[in-house]
Parts: sequence; C-alpha cells; structure tokens
Amino acid sequence: MTTFFPMNGGDGPYSFSKNSQLQREVLDGAKGMVRDAIIQKLDIKIMLSSSNTIRIADFGCSVGPNTFIAMQHVVQALKDKLLQVTNSTNNIPEFQIFFNDHVINDFNTLFRSLPIDRSYYAFGVPGTFHGRLFPSRSIHFAHSSCAIHWLSKIPKELLDEKSPAWNRGSIHYIGTSNVEVVNAYVAQFEKDMEMLLNARAEEIVEGGMMVLVTPFASYTRLMNFFGSSLMDLVNEGTLDESLVDSFNLPMYFPSPEDMTKVVEKNGCFSIERMELTYPKSKLVEEADAKTLMINLRAVLEGLIINHFGSKIAEEACARTILKSEEISTWIKANYEKSCQLFVALKRK
Amino acid sequence: MTTFFPMNGGDGPYSFSKNSQLQREVLDGAKGMVRDAIIQKLDIKIMLSSSNTIRIADFGCSVGPNTFIAMQHVVQALKDKLLQVTNSTNNIPEFQIFFNDHVINDFNTLFRSLPIDRSYYAFGVPGTFHGRLFPSRSIHFAHSSCAIHWLSKIPKELLDEKSPAWNRGSIHYIGTSNVEVVNAYVAQFEKDMEMLLNARAEEIVEGGMMVLVTPFASYTRLMNFFGSSLMDLVNEGTLDESLVDSFNLPMYFPSPEDMTKVVEKNGCFSIERMELTYPKSKLVEEADAKTLMINLRAVLEGLIINHFGSKIAEEACARTILKSEEISTWIKANYEKSCQLFVALKRK
Ligand SMILES: Nc1ncnc2c1ncn2[C@@H]1O[C@H](CSCC[C@H](N)C(=O)O)[C@@H](O)[C@H]1O
Ligand SMILES: Nc1ncnc2c1ncn2[C@@H]1O[C@H](CSCC[C@H](N)C(=O)O)[C@@H](O)[C@H]1O
Repeated sequence: MTTFFPMNGGDGPYSFSKNSQLQREVLDGAKGMVRDAIIQKLDIKIMLSSSNTIRIADFGCSVGPNTFIAMQHVVQALKDKLLQVTNSTNNIPEFQIFFNDHVINDFNTLFRSLPIDRSYYAFGVPGTFHGRLFPSRSIHFAHSSCAIHWLSKIPKELLDEKSPAWNRGSIHYIGTSNVEVVNAYVAQFEKDMEMLLNARAEEIVEGGMMVLVTPFASYTRLMNFFGSSLMDLVNEGTLDESLVDSFNLPMYFPSPEDMTKVVEKNGCFSIERMELTYPKSKLVEEADAKTLMINLRAVLEGLIINHFGSKIAEEACARTILKSEEISTWIKANYEKSCQLFVALKRK
Repeated sequence: MTTFFPMNGGDGPYSFSKNSQLQREVLDGAKGMVRDAIIQKLDIKIMLSSSNTIRIADFGCSVGPNTFIAMQHVVQALKDKLLQVTNSTNNIPEFQIFFNDHVINDFNTLFRSLPIDRSYYAFGVPGTFHGRLFPSRSIHFAHSSCAIHWLSKIPKELLDEKSPAWNRGSIHYIGTSNVEVVNAYVAQFEKDMEMLLNARAEEIVEGGMMVLVTPFASYTRLMNFFGSSLMDLVNEGTLDESLVDSFNLPMYFPSPEDMTKVVEKNGCFSIERMELTYPKSKLVEEADAKTLMINLRAVLEGLIINHFGSKIAEEACARTILKSEEISTWIKANYEKSCQLFVALKRK
C-alpha cells in the first residue's frame, strides 16, 4: 500500500471541499499562533534584502476552501508585519503562493475555486512533500495543516501475517495494545519526517519559517468507529477478517516529543514554539456525529474503497453514521481530549 | 462569448493529449529556431548573476504531451549554453518550469503525465496569459506554441446582426470577403497582444527572452471545412442560419507585419528574429484528412458544443470527416501555403 488516495475531489455531497469543517476547526484553532509566529519571530528584513517577492507554500493543500483561508491569513499577517517594520505602505512586496499536494489531488477543483480578489500570484505544485519540490533557498514561509500526519506508506511489518506487528482486528495503532504496531507507526513517521525536514531545510531561506499544525486526538479516535463497523461486518460473516487485519490507516499523530526528536535529529531548524492546544470545537460541542463522520468519509473513502471495494466501503460508512448516538456520547465524554499540536520552526 | 472553452481534457479518443499531432508538427518546425535563440541570443550570464535558478514559462500549455517535449528541449538548450559559457559542469543551476493555461484547462491530466525523470521543478499556473501571472522580473525564458492566436473574446461587432461586421454564412475571417470582419479580428488581436506584452514586459528579466510560435495557414483554413459542414446543415433545414452567422472562431493568425506592429507599439522588446517557415509536415504530405480533422475536433469541440449543442456539434464533426477526399485534395493543392510564424523577442 504505497499508493496514495486523495481526498474526495470535485464539489459533490461527499467531496472534501464540502466536508472539511473538521480541518477548518483545526486551522482556526491555530490562527492566532500562526500570526504570532509571523509577527514575533520572522526575520522579514533579511528575507527581503535579496528580493521583493515573498514566497509562501502550503503543503498538503487539498482542494480548498481551507487552504485559501489559511493563505489569506498568512498574507495578511505578513502585510501587517511589513507595515510595522518598514513603517510605510510603499514598496509592498509581491506574494507568490504555492499550493502543494499529491499529483493525484484534484487541482482542477482547487484552481477553479481560487479567490478572485486574491492579492497573490497562485501556483500549483504537484508532488509529495516528503521530497524536493522547490529550488534551494526559495521559500520564505511554509505552512501545513492537517497533512503531515499522513504517512507515505504502511510499514511492511503491518502487512505480514507472521510478524508481531500484524494488527489483528484493528485498523490503526490507536486503541491497540500491541506495542509492535505502535512502534512500526512511529518508525515510519520518523522516516517520513526526516525526508520532509531534509527537503524543507534545502528549500527554506535562512530566517524563514515553517508552521505545522496536526490534529491530535479528537479526529483520530473517531476513525475507530469506522473500524468497529468493519468488525461488525466481519462478525456477521459479510467480510473476511484478514481483510480488516491487513488494513491500516496510514496516519500517525505525533506528540510534542515525537516532533522534538525529529526536528533535533535534522538539526537545521530551531523550535520557536511547540504547543498542544485545546481549542473550542463547535462540531464536538454540538456532538454533531453525522457531520464528523461525513468529514471523515471525504478523507478516507478512496483508501477504503481501494482495500475493501465500494460495496463494503459504502456499507461501513452507512453503518458508522448509524452509530451517531454512540459517537455523540463518546465525544461528550472525551471532549477534553480533543487537542491539536502546533509547531513553529525557524531555519537556522 | 467571453468565456473560454478548453481543449478536450483527459486521455479519451477525442482528447487533446491523444490528438495534438498538428501542434506537435508546429512545435517541431520551430525547434531549431528556439535552440538558436537560446544559444545565440540569450544573455545567460546576466541572468544568473542574481540567482542560481532559471525560471521558464510555457504559456498555453494545454495538457501535454507537447508542452513536455517543448520544455525538455528548452532546458537542454539552456544546459548546452551554460556549458559553453561557463566551461564547467559544476554549479549547474536549478530549473523551474511554470506550465500556464486557462483556469479551466485540465491540469489534473497535465500533472499526472509530467515526465518522471524531469530535471526541473514543475508548477501549474492557472489564468489567462493576457494578464499578470508572475511577480516582476522573475521569468528568464518564456515560450508559447500554438496558443497566442486564441483571442480573449469575439469582438462584439461580430455579434450584432445590424453591424457591417456581421459574418454571414461564415465562421471565421479567413475566406470571407467582408473587410469589416477582418478588421474586427485584427483589432481584437492587437488589444489582446497589447495586454500580453505589457504583462510579460513586467515579468521577464532584462535580457530574458520570449519565443512565440503560431500556426499560420495550414491548420487555419481547415477550419472552414467545419464551417461548410455547418452550412450543409443550414441548407438541409436542420440548423438555423443565424446560429452559424453568430458563430465565429476566436482565433486570429497574425502575419509578421501584425506582430511587428504590436511589439513596436509595446516598446519593451527587441525583435531578434521573425520568420515565416514552411516546415515539412507528415500530416499534410500524407494528406491525412481524418487525423487532421480529429485534431481540430479536440481543439474546437467545447466551443462548438457550447454554441450549437452537442447534437449539431456531433453531426458537423461527423460530416466533416466524410469530406476527407475533398480535404485531401485541398491539402495537396495548398501544400506550399502550410507555413508557420516564429518570433523571438528579447526584453530590453
Ligand atoms: N506526502 C504528501 N505530499 C503532499 N500532500 C500530501 C501528502 N500526504 C498527504 N497529503 C495531502 O494532505 C491533505 C490533507 S487534507 C488537509 C487539507 C488542508 N490543509 C486543510 O486543512 O483543509 C490531502 O489533500 C492529502 O492529499
Ligand atoms: N488567454 C489564454 N491564457 C492561457 N492559455 C490560453 C489562452 N488562450 C488559449 N490558451 C490555451 O492555449 C492552448 C492552445 S493548444 C496548444 C497547446 C500546446 N502549447 C501545444 O503546442 O500542444 C489551449 O490549451 C488553450 O487553453
């Protein structure tokens, strides 16, 4: 399972563009910290000494609208900062925004929904953010929200029935008691982040910054409700258990310790801020299980169909929606756990 | 009719990606001249004094594969030139290639067919080339093949039944005897090119170059066979004549004089080379009318369906294919007219 499955494209009822409120909340939860990073930490004068263009990249942008909101916010903070630093409105630099996602992302939808009144030049950048995407020293500000927790692949131990990391009856490392499974996920995350940080270290200018936002608990545990719907189908005899055992969601939600470890190992970035936050969530507060699950469907459908076929995928999605009551109860009980991780790095 | 209709996307039987041999021949016909422009005229040392990245843009790239062939050729010529100038293989600069087309172009297909072994960073740039797309002074080499003859819109005189420029019984300016029609097309072309040159003058660095390749006669007159199929339908009473009268292809094929005029009016570029050439054409030589018409269909289908609906569009396409004999005869007789225009400009 090395191939990647994109968020649902287009703008239909199960599309990501119509069902990304969850990611929107995560983004909103980090807004203030993104602004602070720019206003308080970014060496904008150094950056502008060599060129009058500011280059910003959003890694894992999907199809919008969140990426447009995020980038507008970044541009506004940069403009405010410039005003403070230069004390003049002349000579405002030009902004270039690079929207990155996998080659198979639906860039057509992304491009067609670009804001008309944007104050930046817009570019699409197809390719994995685990590798190089830009020339050396060309990016001033890098942003990524709800994306770096996607692993590049499922570690092969998880696919081997004879390995101690065979993930029986579960679709993720969260909720299993098998420490081998957890270790395999952690190791893959570390490898992926090593690649990501190496690439960004080349691409980001000295004094430039990168902010990374990842959902932590809220969103993640919800996925297990999908898992339990799949197990229901196994128990009813409609689905072969080995198919569930061999299915593993390619996501790892890093802790502050995980992040510190990979950043320090890379050595090119200083950690300017690292924080677990517990922003208010309307979706969680209202225990709106249905919206939450449809959001998850927009994210996972491609993956699930690939592994189980569309009939089982449809059935598992439908059954999970039927668990709304149970999910709502769970959400209420686990409210305080719905946190997210914010990291601001500066290129040394 | 201000909205634009893209080349057929995807990779189906009538897609542009499968049916662009005509444009490929035009491209191939200009290859030597593109290389000469780079080797003989480009001030590459000046360009690299400020940065180690060379930025290249292809305007009106469509979905490939021609754009990939063109860009590979440009990169190769630049590498060869660098080798001559610097006499060393160290410190090869990085290449950034920007693929531009209308927002509604099928960028998904473009991105999915990017060459795996490319030696450049690839970007998509959605938007019209009649306006700004890049920051000031950021492009070193601009390329456009078979694209700038597309007008941004049909001049409104052509849409007014009472105007002397009402284009009765014809779908283009080529072949009409109505000079008002021709003038309206010329005026629109001049307006569009003024916008294009103004934008590029801001974006291209001093000493940077732009090469423009346009098909001239070969391709263009073929479109009139479509026109006559439409008139057949009118004569049979299946189609209302006013629908044909009000349909005008938004393309103008500039002469060297047209190009000289707009470039001189703009004033920011020197004309390094301007040439009408008569490259050998396999399609024309073999009088392969069917391939030619299917190529044209890949280009025009969207436009025609929008105006006439898909039933008439299908019928007119099918009938034009039936004219293969007639088209072949015409092609043979007009072989010497199948020329194309090459222009190389340098930013002063
Ligand atoms: N290795 C990788 N390279 C580039 N994009 C990736 C990636 N792994 C995952 N992604 C992308 O990350 C996105 C996560 S969805 C989040 C989208 C957006 N940032 C928002 O907050 O709404 C998906 O579109 C997915 O395709
Ligand atoms: N104003 C404009 N801005 C950007 N692209 C344009 C344009 N007008 C036309 N085009 C694009 O120009 C392309 C012409 S087809 C030629 C494609 C390619 N250069 C080749 O040689 O094969 C189409 O994809 C069309 O969408």
